[in-house]
Amino acid sequence: MKNVKHAKCVKCGKIYEAVPNLTNCSCGGILDIVYDYSYIKGVLTKETLAARRDNSMWRYRELLPVEESTPNTPLRVGWSPLYQADTLARELGIARLYVKDDGINPTASLKDRASAMAVAKAQEAGAGVIACSSTGNAASSLAGNAAAAGLKTYIFVPSRAPKGKVAQLMTFGATVISVQGSYEDTFELSRQAIDKWGWYNRNAAINPYLSEGKKTVGLEIMEQLDWQVPDYIAISVGDGCTIAGLWKGLKDLYAIGFIDRLPRLISAQAAGCYPINRAIETGADWSPMEENTLADSIAVGVPRNADKALAAIRESNGLTVEVTDGEIMAAQKLLGRTCGVFGEPAGVTGAAGLKKLCGQGKIPADATVVSVVTGNGLKDVANAINACGEPISIPGDMELLLKAFAENGIVVE
Amino acid sequence: MKNVKHAKCVKCGKIYEAVPNLTNCSCGGILDIVYDYSYIKGVLTKETLAARRDNSMWRYRELLPVEESTPNTPLRVGWSPLYQADTLARELGIARLYVKDDGINPTASLKDRASAMAVAKAQEAGAGVIACSSTGNAASSLAGNAAAAGLKTYIFVPSRAPKGKVAQLMTFGATVISVQGSYEDTFELSRQAIDKWGWYNRNAAINPYLSEGKKTVGLEIMEQLDWQVPDYIAISVGDGCTIAGLWKGLKDLYAIGFIDRLPRLISAQAAGCYPINRAIETGADWSPMEENTLADSIAVGVPRNADKALAAIRESNGLTVEVTDGEIMAAQKLLGRTCGVFGEPAGVTGAAGLKKLCGQGKIPADATVVSVVTGNGLKDVANAINACGEPISIPGDMELLLKAFAENGIVVE
Repeated sequence: MKNVKHAKCVKCGKIYEAVPNLTNCSCGGILDIVYDYSYIKGVLTKETLAARRDNSMWRYRELLPVEESTPNTPLRVGWSPLYQADTLARELGIARLYVKDDGINPTASLKDRASAMAVAKAQEAGAGVIACSSTGNAASSLAGNAAAAGLKTYIFVPSRAPKGKVAQLMTFGATVISVQGSYEDTFELSRQAIDKWGWYNRNAAINPYLSEGKKTVGLEIMEQLDWQVPDYIAISVGDGCTIAGLWKGLKDLYAIGFIDRLPRLISAQAAGCYPINRAIETGADWSPMEENTLADSIAVGVPRNADKALAAIRESNGLTVEVTDGEIMAAQKLLGRTCGVFGEPAGVTGAAGLKKLCGQGKIPADATVVSVVTGNGLKDVANAINACGEPISIPGDMELLLKAFAENGIVVE
Repeated sequence: MKNVKHAKCVKCGKIYEAVPNLTNCSCGGILDIVYDYSYIKGVLTKETLAARRDNSMWRYRELLPVEESTPNTPLRVGWSPLYQADTLARELGIARLYVKDDGINPTASLKDRASAMAVAKAQEAGAGVIACSSTGNAASSLAGNAAAAGLKTYIFVPSRAPKGKVAQLMTFGATVISVQGSYEDTFELSRQAIDKWGWYNRNAAINPYLSEGKKTVGLEIMEQLDWQVPDYIAISVGDGCTIAGLWKGLKDLYAIGFIDRLPRLISAQAAGCYPINRAIETGADWSPMEENTLADSIAVGVPRNADKALAAIRESNGLTVEVTDGEIMAAQKLLGRTCGVFGEPAGVTGAAGLKKLCGQGKIPADATVVSVVTGNGLKDVANAINACGEPISIPGDMELLLKAFAENGIVVE
C-alpha cells in the first residue's frame, strides 16, 4: 500500500507494519492507520474525484488502506444521499441543515462501510471466514457483504438484538450465535472463538481497518457539500468507532488540503447509556454503564473504542448531549415528517441530540449542521409501532370513514 | 411538455391532452402516455446520459412526462445497483445473471419511482394533498416522498398490510386508514374519498403517469448493461403496473434507437393468486382470484392494470410462472446467501419464478437474465423469521459454544 505508512498504537505509540490481519497493540491499545499524505496529495485531486463514476465508498481508494490489486467489494456501499433539510432547519431555528441518510446502504446501515472494508482486508489476508460480535447492524452488514463476496461468517449477537436484524443476517447464510447476556458478554465469547479458530476479525474496536471504512461517510459529506465545511456534524455514539471514523475522514481531508478547517462534532448518546459523553463531561476516565435504552445499536455500556472516540470529540472541540428514549422516538417522527427519512432509534439519536442542543440555545442560529442517520427504521419496527400508535381501522364504507375522521378530529382540506 | 404528444386510452384509443391530473378514459380504459420520439432523439444521446452526474431516476428527464420547469423530487429515488450474480447464475445453470436491487430505494421499494412521479405531477397540478390505496409499499413510498416535498397524504391500506410498512408511513406523517377487507375493498374506499375531496390520485392503475415513473427501472437496467439487451427480465406481478412500466421503458429505448431488440419478460406470480398469468395461460379474459399468498405486495386478486400488463407480457413473447410461498421463501434465502441481497417475499418472487423455469429447462443455458428485486426484506420480517428458524442461543461460555456447534453439526473450518 503506497498510501499507508504503518499502524500506530493510539495509547503507547508503538509502530506496526500494516498487514491485513492487524489487531490491537501488545499494550492493549487500539491501532490507527497512518497515511503518507504527501503521496496521496500527488495522486488525488478534487478534479480526479469529481470525474469519477464510481458511486460507492470505493471512489476514495487513494484514502483507503487497501492494496491497489484488491477488488472493490461486490455490494454498492456508500455514496448515500445528503439531503438539504430546509423545513427541519426552520423548525430547529438554524440556518442550514443537511441529513445524511446512511440507512439506504445495502443492508440498511452505516456499518456496511466497515464490513465492506473487513471483506476487502479478509481477502487480502487469504481468509475464507470472518467473525464478529455486534448489537445487530455490524452483524447483518458483515453477513451481507461477505455473502456477496463468497466468504463464510460466524456472528455473535446479544439476545436483545431485534429480530429483524437477526432474520436479515440468517437470510445471508451466516452462522448466528445469540448470546444470553450483555453486549460485553457477547464480545468476550466472540473474542475467545476468534482466538481459537483464527477467523478474520471484524470487531471494529480491534481491527483498525474498520474505522477506515467508516470514515468514508465523512469523505462523502464533504464532497457532497463541495468541500464547504459545516459548523457541526451530529452523530450517535455507541462503541465509539463510528464517530472516530467520521473524524478520521475529516482529518484526512484537512491533511491533504481538500478542506481548510474542521467542523465540531456533536456526540449524541442515550440518557440511559452514555459512558463516552460522561467521560467528556466529567473530565474523568470513562467507566462502564448500564445499557438502558431502546436504541439498541448504541446501547453499549463498555465502549470498545472509547480512546479514539474521546480523542475525536476533544480534538474537534465537540459537544456532548444525552437524549431520552422519548426524545429519540420524537426525533424519528420529526425526521420522517419533515424529511421523508425513516431512521432506526440509534440512527436518529444524532438528530435528537441536535434538536435538544438547539432548544438549549447551544447552536448558533447561523450555523450549518449535518446530521447523520446511521440506520434504517425498518431495522426495528416494534419501537416505531409503539411510537406511532395505530392507524384508523374501519371496514370499507364511506359513512364510517366520515365518522372516523370526525372522531379523530381530522379536517380534510 | 415538448416530449409528450398526448395520452391515449389503451382500450378505445381516445386521445386526451396530457394534463397533470389525468385519470381513466371515459370508457373505463387506462390511459398511456404517448411520446414524441423524434423530438427525444434530437435532445437525448447515450453520450449525454453517460456524462450526467444525477444518480437518480431524474437522469432520464427527456423520457419522463414532466414539465421542464418541474423540480426533481427531494428523495434520491432510483439508480439502484445492478449486481452481476455469478454464483447464483452457476447454481441456476444459466450463463449470466444480474440482480437489480430496488430495495435500496429511499423507502425501500421500487414503488418510490411511481411515488416520486406522483409528487412531481401533484405539484404541477397545484395540489397540496395526495391519496392512494396500497398493499403497503406504494403507501409508504408516497408518504415518504410527499413528506420530503411538503405535501400531505391520505393513505388507505388493507388491514393485512405488514406492521412495518404501516409504521413507516405513519412515521412519515401520513393519515392512515386501515380497511378491514380485501385490497379491492381498500381501493374502492380510496376511490370514493378521492372523488369526494378532490385529492391528487396516486393509484397507479388510474393515474397514467405512475407507470412512467416505474419505467425508469427498465431504463436503468439497460444503461447499466451498456445497452446490451438481456434475453429475459424476471419480475413479480401483482396489480400489473410494475411489469407494464418496465416494458414501457424498454419500448421507449427501442423507439429512440438506444437498443436494437427487446427482451422477453418473465411474469412471476404467486400460486395462490395469479389472475394475470392465468389469463395469459388460458387465453381467456382475466377474472378475479382469491389472495392466498404471504407475498403481500402481489396478493392482488383484482389487478387494476391487467390490460397494460397482459399487453406487455404478450408483446414481449413473455413467459409466465407461478411459485408457492415455500418457493418464494427459498428464493429469499437463495438471493441472500449468494448475492447478499435481502428481498421481501414479493420482491424475490421474480427470482423464485426464474429458478423454477430454469429447473423446468425453459431457460436456455446460454441466456442472459435480469432479475428485479422490487422491495427490501426488512419490510416484512415476520415471514423471514419463520423461514430462517432461530439462531443458536447460549450463555456466553466457550464450552457451551463447542457443545452447541457439535449438537447442530457445525464443523468449523
